[in-house]
Amino acid sequence: MSAFEKLKQHSKKISHFNHLAAICGWDQAAVMPSGGNQARSEAMAELSVHIHNLHTQPQLEEWFEQAEGESLNVTDKATLRELKREWQQANVLPEALVQAKSLAGSKCEHAWRTQRKDNDWAGFEKNWAEVVQLSQEEAQIRAEANGNTPYDAMLDIYEPGTNSASLDALFSDVKSWLPDLINQAIEKQSSDRYLVPEGEFSAAKQKALGLEVMKMLQFDFNHGRLDESMHPFCGGIPTDVRITTRYDEKEFAQSLMGIIHETGHARYEQGLPKSLSGLPSGEARSMGIHESQSLFFEMQIGRSNRFIAHLANYAAKHFDGHNPELFSQENFYKLYTRVKKDFIRVDADELTYPAHVILRYEIERDLINGNIKHTDVPELWNDKMQTYLGLSTEGNYRNGCMQDIHWTDGAFGYFTSYTLGAMYAAQFMASMQNSVDVDAAIQSGDLTPIFSWLSDNIWSKGSLLTTDELVQQATGETLNAAHFQTHLRSRYL
Amino acid sequence: MSAFEKLKQHSKKISHFNHLAAICGWDQAAVMPSGGNQARSEAMAELSVHIHNLHTQPQLEEWFEQAEGESLNVTDKATLRELKREWQQANVLPEALVQAKSLAGSKCEHAWRTQRKDNDWAGFEKNWAEVVQLSQEEAQIRAEANGNTPYDAMLDIYEPGTNSASLDALFSDVKSWLPDLINQAIEKQSSDRYLVPEGEFSAAKQKALGLEVMKMLQFDFNHGRLDESMHPFCGGIPTDVRITTRYDEKEFAQSLMGIIHETGHARYEQGLPKSLSGLPSGEARSMGIHESQSLFFEMQIGRSNRFIAHLANYAAKHFDGHNPELFSQENFYKLYTRVKKDFIRVDADELTYPAHVILRYEIERDLINGNIKHTDVPELWNDKMQTYLGLSTEGNYRNGCMQDIHWTDGAFGYFTSYTLGAMYAAQFMASMQNSVDVDAAIQSGDLTPIFSWLSDNIWSKGSLLTTDELVQQATGETLNAAHFQTHLRSRYL
Repeated sequence: MSAFEKLKQHSKKISHFNHLAAICGWDQAAVMPSGGNQARSEAMAELSVHIHNLHTQPQLEEWFEQAEGESLNVTDKATLRELKREWQQANVLPEALVQAKSLAGSKCEHAWRTQRKDNDWAGFEKNWAEVVQLSQEEAQIRAEANGNTPYDAMLDIYEPGTNSASLDALFSDVKSWLPDLINQAIEKQSSDRYLVPEGEFSAAKQKALGLEVMKMLQFDFNHGRLDESMHPFCGGIPTDVRITTRYDEKEFAQSLMGIIHETGHARYEQGLPKSLSGLPSGEARSMGIHESQSLFFEMQIGRSNRFIAHLANYAAKHFDGHNPELFSQENFYKLYTRVKKDFIRVDADELTYPAHVILRYEIERDLINGNIKHTDVPELWNDKMQTYLGLSTEGNYRNGCMQDIHWTDGAFGYFTSYTLGAMYAAQFMASMQNSVDVDAAIQSGDLTPIFSWLSDNIWSKGSLLTTDELVQQATGETLNAAHFQTHLRSRYL
Repeated sequence: MSAFEKLKQHSKKISHFNHLAAICGWDQAAVMPSGGNQARSEAMAELSVHIHNLHTQPQLEEWFEQAEGESLNVTDKATLRELKREWQQANVLPEALVQAKSLAGSKCEHAWRTQRKDNDWAGFEKNWAEVVQLSQEEAQIRAEANGNTPYDAMLDIYEPGTNSASLDALFSDVKSWLPDLINQAIEKQSSDRYLVPEGEFSAAKQKALGLEVMKMLQFDFNHGRLDESMHPFCGGIPTDVRITTRYDEKEFAQSLMGIIHETGHARYEQGLPKSLSGLPSGEARSMGIHESQSLFFEMQIGRSNRFIAHLANYAAKHFDGHNPELFSQENFYKLYTRVKKDFIRVDADELTYPAHVILRYEIERDLINGNIKHTDVPELWNDKMQTYLGLSTEGNYRNGCMQDIHWTDGAFGYFTSYTLGAMYAAQFMASMQNSVDVDAAIQSGDLTPIFSWLSDNIWSKGSLLTTDELVQQATGETLNAAHFQTHLRSRYL
């Protein structure tokens, strides 16, 4: 057996254990009674150790050396590249640092759940100091291995191939037009009147509505499910994708759009190349490309005028006893495209969202590169919120720099994926429109031509190409934020 | 660290992987979409191999030798005994035989699903020949290791401490009075008139009813759930017990009693000693004792006159638009105690059930000991059905010797657990009545005194005692079928 074949078999073995982790993780979030948590956490930790042991077996080094010299076709070369990347990521950090960061992160996150409610920056800052310091150590080690800067090394975990030089340029451009565009949109919407959902919308009816919309979006129910969890997510494995939502029985609009978002993630997973299952080359390309699919579904399809007409009709059918005006296409469109400057990223609209991300990017970049101290963060946050959204967070840590879970356990480098995803989604739509009559497909309710384009250009490629190659092949150019700007101007002005 | 301590830590590691297998197994049966089956089966097989590897690590032999010489208290001695038993069971068979039997069993079972419908004994017999032969080989190897007969070695897997000499005596006694008792009961019931549930009973309402009954039976919902699956079972782990049922929307009585049965299994699991979690001494004593708890709930509590009064009231509350006569205590009692000679074990009533089990016991005992051939089974089945229940299965393989799944994959030795369980349950009830006013507890709806007795005498003991010691300590004597006979005579005559 060739060394490459040995590496592939080893990868498939690991993927079986990842499968068990994905299903038990879904179970823990979606159906497990709370009394089962302690034993489950112990079992999951044991599984993590086992998976880590598989990734760090000593014979792998020799297999990689041998495989580099073996004759491989283009697909196998891509598989080997991704196998090696995964192996290096798993082996680059000393075990002691991984454990220390995991412990510090768990401690910080656990305390943060209370500290955030109490607006307790002083308490939070004490725990967070260690998370930041260990993350800086991690970034330093990764940077030395990669030959790049500490923050770029963290970016590379989530977005292979991206770096802060290109993000600086990208976001600098966005900052030059976004604040004005936000103000113009708000001004334009100032006289809009619309109804917001009020009253009772049972979880059972919301679920039936969600399932109907998922069906229109061609979610494959033979390979996936919709369930409920506190924090919505897309989990499971490509042959069995588990998406979740959370129903607020006083309001249906947010959960409904959340289901559309998660369906985008799910269809990417369901559409990954089956011939590469169990190999990293058969997995999603990056967090940014994953987010591009969820945001394509949510922003490019889901909030388009023609799709909103379907949503309004479906909703009217499922919920009776409400003012029919609520379910007019015009009302739904106003509801789903409302722009508002506000504090919280996860509740932000499409237009203000990039401001939240750029703010975080600039702060975490400087923090991980050691140019600022973690105690500088609240003031910087306030300054940037003032500049980008005209809001003060002075003394308001809860709705300022303490609002997100990401930094509590040291996931620095993740935030940019959200806005990269939004930009890729706009670029994919612009390119798709050259060959697909998107409006007609959405209006007809048969979105097959849209999904065929996504499948051919994105889903079926897995990680065979680099992100730049993928985007270049799909759209004729690498990331170009102009499409995002055009999309926003067209929708909001 | 002492060798005993090393063995315990190793056992807890294995229990974490068993935890993942239990949850993913539940998922596969209860919620997984069918398209996920192939990848799940592969992941589960990988996990099985890993667990087997853990059970067969070479250093364990030395640890067991050392631990035998270490100073241990009585609990630790019991733990060591059960650890060693588990280790021996996992190591006694050559790998090649385990794999061959697994393959032959899967093949036979898969084909049986169609062959049974087609009444195709000739087709079945060809596959089954190999399963029987490999099971005989397995039994022979086990017998040599244990120093007993082949069939006794198979019994020992499910019922440690039991042997065919004692079962022969036990069942010979039952056969001396059961056929007459069945005939007398049928004669007594011949003029009974009663209503059977007909019409529509929605799954949602049946579930609400089931949950209410589980609450009365003090199922701990913080450590367990009720879900649906094709074949009802009790799975999960003690901190998170998953029971399932199957709803027939035209009939509720069977699912309702099934929920009560599985709740008995579940409460045993939930009541196992937490201080021994992850160790075999903290697990259920045997399949027969497990069944004694489900049958205690189903037969001793669930079909008692006073409990049936509660069930009838609950059902009347949940289902409207039906003849109120259906929900009278008298009607429910007749419904749930009806005796009928019939072909199918899983549908059999309490009184005829032992006849089905004894028939299987006598055949599989002689088959595994090599005293009959597998081709003799249909004729023997027919003879014994004629003798015990007065029914002919000549040519009727589908409802004769091809009806059960157990033999298709070689689970010889399992069937006796059902009737041992029924006998233990009757004996526990007889003993409990010496110190607990069972009727008053059931009538009041607060069954705490009953569950306290079961917890003190059965659940909290795990596998610290042998089965004989457990039953002796709980009831003052080892298994005594007279209690079972008394119970049946009192209920059916």
